[in-house]
Amino acid sequence: MRLASLEAGGRATPAAVLENGDYLRLDLAAAAAGLSGDVRAAFEGEGLAPLIAAGPAALEAAREFAAAAADAARVPAASARLLAPIPRPSKNVFCVGRNYAEHIAEGERAQNIKVGVSDNPVFFTKPPATVIGHGAPAPHFEHVTRKLDYEVELAVIIGRGGRDIPKERAMEHVFGYTIANDLTARDIQRTHGGQFFKGKALDGSCPMGPWIVTADALPDAAATGLRLWVNGEKRQDGNTRDMIFDMPTLIASLSAGLTLEPGDIIATGTPSGVGYAMEPPVFLKHGDVVVCEIDGIGRLETPIRSSGAAMAAA
Amino acid sequence: MRLASLEAGGRATPAAVLENGDYLRLDLAAAAAGLSGDVRAAFEGEGLAPLIAAGPAALEAAREFAAAAADAARVPAASARLLAPIPRPSKNVFCVGRNYAEHIAEGERAQNIKVGVSDNPVFFTKPPATVIGHGAPAPHFEHVTRKLDYEVELAVIIGRGGRDIPKERAMEHVFGYTIANDLTARDIQRTHGGQFFKGKALDGSCPMGPWIVTADALPDAAATGLRLWVNGEKRQDGNTRDMIFDMPTLIASLSAGLTLEPGDIIATGTPSGVGYAMEPPVFLKHGDVVVCEIDGIGRLETPIRSSGAAMAAA
Repeated sequence: MRLASLEAGGRATPAAVLENGDYLRLDLAAAAAGLSGDVRAAFEGEGLAPLIAAGPAALEAAREFAAAAADAARVPAASARLLAPIPRPSKNVFCVGRNYAEHIAEGERAQNIKVGVSDNPVFFTKPPATVIGHGAPAPHFEHVTRKLDYEVELAVIIGRGGRDIPKERAMEHVFGYTIANDLTARDIQRTHGGQFFKGKALDGSCPMGPWIVTADALPDAAATGLRLWVNGEKRQDGNTRDMIFDMPTLIASLSAGLTLEPGDIIATGTPSGVGYAMEPPVFLKHGDVVVCEIDGIGRLETPIRSSGAAMAAA
Repeated sequence: MRLASLEAGGRATPAAVLENGDYLRLDLAAAAAGLSGDVRAAFEGEGLAPLIAAGPAALEAAREFAAAAADAARVPAASARLLAPIPRPSKNVFCVGRNYAEHIAEGERAQNIKVGVSDNPVFFTKPPATVIGHGAPAPHFEHVTRKLDYEVELAVIIGRGGRDIPKERAMEHVFGYTIANDLTARDIQRTHGGQFFKGKALDGSCPMGPWIVTADALPDAAATGLRLWVNGEKRQDGNTRDMIFDMPTLIASLSAGLTLEPGDIIATGTPSGVGYAMEPPVFLKHGDVVVCEIDGIGRLETPIRSSGAAMAAA
């Protein structure tokens, strides 16, 4: 099943994505009517978060509701405005750095340094305000960075929460997947004491979407192609099977002593092909269009806009 | 004015701290009755967050309400259970690394490396679930870390939000101050590719409190003493005047291209005296009691408990 958040009157409306590309508004309250009080209560929040938190019974109820829904709930693709699937996460997005060998190698070449593979996953975060949806302009803060770059990544959406999740059970905690573009200000990333955070934390620097594909609908998530284009030129072309730390390892490592909660997001790292490692380096500029694609999920398009213009349009 | 969050029936009740140490429950809805609709609406949420978001008029209303409050609103110190002032931040806590020269120097000695002062502030984050209040046990996940360490820090609470805040206006965005203990798993901090995040992100690793002192009540925040004891032995004894990047610089640098929101928290770094730099190094263990103190704010006490014991008590 594919699940999206549609903008409607300033709120995020949960929707199923139909085969033909249209959407079906999910009236979660109605879908939950036959459920127990606890599960029903979980549907009263906004967007997809309560559905994710409510567990498998809730997802099943949503599925049945979608199958039986009236035509009145249908929203044609052309008139829908997609938000990020989880428009305002309840905490920073968890991210993984240096998780593809060729991306590490290109970084070493570009910076003339030796980094190598870390013994453990390299985690950092992006604040909730970095998250924007499919088609939304990503602001380019030219007064802050001259080196804005892209990174296509498979993003894992946590369903069932937990701490100290063993590797063997890790995938049971995955609700689904979406696409993330970990936009990165390379200059800031280097000039704040080596910590990735600030260079990856600018407003709007985490386009995400277009929707969530539930785990059952993407059985090949651990061996799926991911690609990125800038203005139609292919820049990244990788496969999630080349992750150094696979998804079970990431979930086990991250959750050691740290509680993961439903709706948490883990961006799992980017393959090679980023702009700063090109010869000569090329960075994003106002007017560029970045398209990310992951097989089995879809395409996430992001126009880059000077921050003034992007903010005026928001 | 000193503002606290008291636990009452699973909710965070805002309270003023009285001279004698007792508390006064703030009925924010009543306090807001004379205010405009917009401000009144902001009082309807939970805890101190709405008060902080509602701006100076709201704080003034709370002050007047406290002055006129009936004895029925009084909670004796002995029967109050303090939560962290902002029990569940809406995003990760912003933190600053390497912001005191002597702390950098002790780290260089301990690790036999050369780090030096960064050109710009070193930012990283701690997730919302790290935050616990005064007196709450901090779990020691012995299966995850053998090197749990402490760091006393002045934490800045953002009042008015903003992006690209100029240094000269930065202090106008400060609502107040509290104490943070940036508990850090030194082994994890070193073994995840140099990124601070995971080693500083374990559940309960950010004791905070005991309350917020509003900015007007702590005019000397930029030159105030901060100290830390473990089991009564003084380990840290610094002064905020020794910050390498002062508060206006931190706020300006962090907010460049990144929107700060009301209730956001910035932990501003720790002075020297941490356990891993002692000779020989000493780390926290089950049964230890850590006390942080900042002049003009108060004392924040944290018992360290094996994770199993701490979780059972929570």
